[in-house]
Amino acid sequence: MGGPPWGRFSAARARPAAQVGVYECEVTLKFRLIEEAQVMDNRDRLLELLLDAFAYGSDEFVEALESQVKVSAIDEVSAPPLMRRQLIRLRNVPS
Amino acid sequence: MGGPPWGRFSAARARPAAQVGVYECEVTLKFRLIEEAQVMDNRDRLLELLLDAFAYGSDEFVEALESQVKVSAIDEVSAPPLMRRQLIRLRNVPS
Repeated sequence: MGGPPWGRFSAARARPAAQVGVYECEVTLKFRLIEEAQVMDNRDRLLELLLDAFAYGSDEFVEALESQVKVSAIDEVSAPPLMRRQLIRLRNVPS
Repeated sequence: MGGPPWGRFSAARARPAAQVGVYECEVTLKFRLIEEAQVMDNRDRLLELLLDAFAYGSDEFVEALESQVKVSAIDEVSAPPLMRRQLIRLRNVPS
């Protein structure tokens, strides 16, 4: 989906810190939604649409039912090479 | 989280249609993330942060592992009153 490198979610980007780690995240969102059938059938765009709807917040079109977040710090050895390199880079920047 | 009523996710808002229904959605996102420990510990903002990170797309900070979407049309009788009223309103608008 792209976006500017100075985006909102950029804590790790903006300032180096000793306490940077790799996390595995699982987010589950449940909600009810009023929508047109043809929109819901467009499987290619569905995930994006649903995340937009959820972010929009509850109103007469969307009702949040449940949201769960599971986060666990993982051994960085299991992280992909690009991520490991980035991690080393972040740790080597003097604070 | 709010937002303008003419937001991106507004198909049902913008044009009335006979085929409007109520859907129950479950979205599951799994991904790996480089982040600071203190940011990940802020439970209040965590969901929002993670959704932002996911929307940002994969790069050297975020790696999408899996995303699942389950959608089922539900009997509108199970929908909350506000949603049912909105549904009736949408169906009564002449197309």
